[in-house]
Amino acid sequence: MTTHALPSPVQGVIESLHAKYRQLKDGEVADYIPELGHASPDWFGICLASRDGQVYEVGDTEQEFTIQSISKAFTYGIGLEDNGLGGVLSHISVEPTGDLFNSISLKPQDGRPFNPMINAGAIASTGLVRGATTAEKVARIRDVFGKYAGRELDVATTVYESESETGHRNRAIGWMLRNFEHIDGDPGPTLEAYFQQCSLSVNCKDLALMGATLANGGVNPVTGVRAIAAEHVVRVLSVMGTCGMYDYAGEWLFHVGLPAKSGVGGGILAVLPGRFGVGVFSPPLDEHGNSVRGIEVCKDLSARYGLHLFQAANPPPSVRTVYSASAVSSKRKRPATERAALADHGGRIKVFELQGALDFAAAEQVLASLVDEVPGADSAIVDCRRVVSIDDGGRSLFVRLLNSAAETGLAILLSGMGQLPGVAAQLRADVDDGVQVRLFDDVDFALEAAEEPLLDAMLPGRTASNAVLLPDQELCAGLAADEMAVLSRLVTEETFAAGEVIIRQGDAADVMYFLKSGQCDITLDLQNGKTKRLSSIAAGTAFGEVALIEHSTRSATVRAYSDVTCGVLSVETFERLSADAPTLHATLLANLARNLTARLRKANGEIQALSG
Amino acid sequence: MTTHALPSPVQGVIESLHAKYRQLKDGEVADYIPELGHASPDWFGICLASRDGQVYEVGDTEQEFTIQSISKAFTYGIGLEDNGLGGVLSHISVEPTGDLFNSISLKPQDGRPFNPMINAGAIASTGLVRGATTAEKVARIRDVFGKYAGRELDVATTVYESESETGHRNRAIGWMLRNFEHIDGDPGPTLEAYFQQCSLSVNCKDLALMGATLANGGVNPVTGVRAIAAEHVVRVLSVMGTCGMYDYAGEWLFHVGLPAKSGVGGGILAVLPGRFGVGVFSPPLDEHGNSVRGIEVCKDLSARYGLHLFQAANPPPSVRTVYSASAVSSKRKRPATERAALADHGGRIKVFELQGALDFAAAEQVLASLVDEVPGADSAIVDCRRVVSIDDGGRSLFVRLLNSAAETGLAILLSGMGQLPGVAAQLRADVDDGVQVRLFDDVDFALEAAEEPLLDAMLPGRTASNAVLLPDQELCAGLAADEMAVLSRLVTEETFAAGEVIIRQGDAADVMYFLKSGQCDITLDLQNGKTKRLSSIAAGTAFGEVALIEHSTRSATVRAYSDVTCGVLSVETFERLSADAPTLHATLLANLARNLTARLRKANGEIQALSG
Repeated sequence: MTTHALPSPVQGVIESLHAKYRQLKDGEVADYIPELGHASPDWFGICLASRDGQVYEVGDTEQEFTIQSISKAFTYGIGLEDNGLGGVLSHISVEPTGDLFNSISLKPQDGRPFNPMINAGAIASTGLVRGATTAEKVARIRDVFGKYAGRELDVATTVYESESETGHRNRAIGWMLRNFEHIDGDPGPTLEAYFQQCSLSVNCKDLALMGATLANGGVNPVTGVRAIAAEHVVRVLSVMGTCGMYDYAGEWLFHVGLPAKSGVGGGILAVLPGRFGVGVFSPPLDEHGNSVRGIEVCKDLSARYGLHLFQAANPPPSVRTVYSASAVSSKRKRPATERAALADHGGRIKVFELQGALDFAAAEQVLASLVDEVPGADSAIVDCRRVVSIDDGGRSLFVRLLNSAAETGLAILLSGMGQLPGVAAQLRADVDDGVQVRLFDDVDFALEAAEEPLLDAMLPGRTASNAVLLPDQELCAGLAADEMAVLSRLVTEETFAAGEVIIRQGDAADVMYFLKSGQCDITLDLQNGKTKRLSSIAAGTAFGEVALIEHSTRSATVRAYSDVTCGVLSVETFERLSADAPTLHATLLANLARNLTARLRKANGEIQALSG
Repeated sequence: MTTHALPSPVQGVIESLHAKYRQLKDGEVADYIPELGHASPDWFGICLASRDGQVYEVGDTEQEFTIQSISKAFTYGIGLEDNGLGGVLSHISVEPTGDLFNSISLKPQDGRPFNPMINAGAIASTGLVRGATTAEKVARIRDVFGKYAGRELDVATTVYESESETGHRNRAIGWMLRNFEHIDGDPGPTLEAYFQQCSLSVNCKDLALMGATLANGGVNPVTGVRAIAAEHVVRVLSVMGTCGMYDYAGEWLFHVGLPAKSGVGGGILAVLPGRFGVGVFSPPLDEHGNSVRGIEVCKDLSARYGLHLFQAANPPPSVRTVYSASAVSSKRKRPATERAALADHGGRIKVFELQGALDFAAAEQVLASLVDEVPGADSAIVDCRRVVSIDDGGRSLFVRLLNSAAETGLAILLSGMGQLPGVAAQLRADVDDGVQVRLFDDVDFALEAAEEPLLDAMLPGRTASNAVLLPDQELCAGLAADEMAVLSRLVTEETFAAGEVIIRQGDAADVMYFLKSGQCDITLDLQNGKTKRLSSIAAGTAFGEVALIEHSTRSATVRAYSDVTCGVLSVETFERLSADAPTLHATLLANLARNLTARLRKANGEIQALSG
């Protein structure tokens, strides 16, 4: 019966991609400096790291190589951190060029590099990294890159020396940048820092984790350390999206649809924002300078698993169901006149049961339904029990709803937001002065709150139901006059103020109550700390009568909803009746069983509704 | 109490954007042909159309203007329809250039235009539209564009004539394309078709609906007519994403993050894939040829409501809770030995309750949890009751899970997939030969199915519980020997085969049953056509006993789970006992009330669990 460990299906996905593309022998290992040429064309690793910190890896994921151009995206992020958005955009544009990575593409108007992913823009980014000397800049770069990767990264010295020795074209770019004042002072220290940055030694797993850090809003999901401010993440991803893959960037977005960056060391890093990072390492490059196997793996992964960010998802409907209080009313026990009024006019209370994640677009769908359904209604209950998240965009539409509903006199009642921490407080902070945010644990309580003013309007002068004396209690149905007289002598009277707890869930049960006037709520304490109303009861009904049947603790809480008067019968007294007044005892039992049956029916109806 | 119509919050959003940017007076109306110069710089419309066909509009949304370069995206789509992906890519690349829209940017290797959004690529696209003559090409273009907009679009003849008269540079491009064989034969008809295509008259609302059609996977959400095959939509959106905004495309993606296209007529069309299209119309243009107000409106909308596609969303967790059968077991009534075995070994059955939309990334999260939790387990129940959708990417990970679980001997049981039409059938079609896909309406039934083999293994030779004769029935507790003798004479015996319905929900209730051997399930028919088990009962328990209390119909269905033997007591007989044998009658009633109480407790527990 015992089982072996279950192989991870996601691990299976990357293993089959690895097996499939290992066969692919196209491309040439970069050799413009000798150190790169030493790489084996067979090295091949794939790693996927999720924003939860799950890491899946296959092949040569520990093999070190130099990060090369992949560094450009991360250094650009440091530039944003150290100078702010404006301080960076004034020196580096974000336009793709279609040109080769090492072209000296500067904007004719102001000499700004077209984007930070070509060498000119990347060198300008390194220039924007805090630090006056090469050492200071490199220390800052290594510190931040190390936070992304979750480990310290070192410069591969021989690669750096070769890069520096042969970096004439980059020096020319450095001086052009100096000419247009996009680099301050001597470009030398910036250039040396740039060569060292490109020579940082990483492995495939580092790339995946650096990507996962971007996917996770800037925080490394394994270490929990922040590498970049959240506001800059989307900017880094945007330049990766349009310019990350050299002069293949457009085709990449066309086919793969994910922000990515590649380097001539053979690495490609791709990001599914909010979800995961992927690192692929395989040194043979195509004519654009991108890893041949890396491109194919990412194309395949994206196509097969629907990762293209422009792929139209088929979002589930955000409104699960709409109903009115004529169909489903609150559990408040009401006299026949009120029940009839709700059946006739309950359409003036509409309930919108929402589901899923509510962003701007999902909220638009909700509000379109609401605007469509509310004409003629007084109240709209927005039940969020099945909503899993509300983002800023969705929330701001709700704020507009609350403001404009207040102006038109429509009451908005929100229920079931307990699982959305902070949203209610934020709504309260954001609505116009004087606009109320009315929140209810549960749609039942919201329904009751909406029914009350409707009933006040429909039945002017309605009063609470009259007192029901002991002989007219449900539990006393069929008792003869002499039996009634016996019972009356045994029942004492007690009063409770509105809100008072009469029976508390879990307490010992030794008396039962006849509700003679007022109303009570029977509620359950839920595990999440909230309260769920099972039913409400009106005068004439017994409660706590289970005590007569079994010696156990109270299974629910009963609270006075209004001021109430009860008749109280102790269990001990009741049990003596079986000998002293057997037919009285039997009649009470039969009535009690009938009462329990009705409640069981109600509970089954509730289960039916909750399971639907 | 009656309310006015509620203003739409989304309408409010676009109205405030309109009011805010109406003040913006920058930019110049295009005047390279006189007809464009006649446009008023004050014209300003905003329209948002959702994939549900909701349309929100403000300002000059009915004012007609020529579509100009916005046509390029849609003609590219026709090229894909008429030639397939390969047939288009061999003539037009998809690389952004950073060059002006009218530059003759052809790839040095093969003379292909860099992308379909510059004039060269757009003219090549028009060349790829089916039709040998100008008239044929224009008819096809008008037909398809009309499907996008949901109405017939006409050529503004004077604009066309001006375009044609002054289109020397475009003629040069046409001949260059002819030179590289990216246009077949005489480029003349293609060029005239291109000029007419650019001169199609649209309004701001048309743009929004054309965008909504792309957002809706190629189907106009108002008319329901398909304008483009779903597979090509993501391709059109991709070239809009990288190249749609002239030499501002990179900045646009950086700041706005949505695929879009603009035209010198003053229109901008942006798309949130899967959600909505936005059209903005305002003739004054900036130095890139983009509508000044259009850019600002889209920037503001995206930033304020979080629409940037690379913005990391904060996805809700896909695993709502994990528990084992030691904590929650099925409702199957079991003898004490089995209950003890489940309490001790129920950890070998794990239940994963999922929620939300399951795409590849969400499924990864589910499977990581599953792989982590199942070592030592025999069965994993994957409860999908709260899952709102499973896409192809998510489903294919589940297929891998089912295949590899079958190899390792882990039983996977899926429950609650009724709301996901087609998913179960697709899973069955996709798993390896011989791999079973085990589906259950409800987690309770899945739990029972997982418990049975575990109990077989833990308790070899376990047998069904023994028969419980009438004197040992719960309902007969406390009866004296003579009372028992009376009752025995009144109770008849009936047998039912496994699976047989003993009591059907809704039928009249005139007898009650003592279950003497075997087991029964008490179930509710739900509105969605599924069945929910309330409880199961074992020998010794009564059922249908509510008939003794109230003359009503059956509130639930009772079905024989195994072959069963019952004692049957008619209501009529029972009622006669109150006179003939009052203490027997009272005892039965007291026991019955105790039974009801236990069931009520169970039902309340269920409500608690369902509401949690």
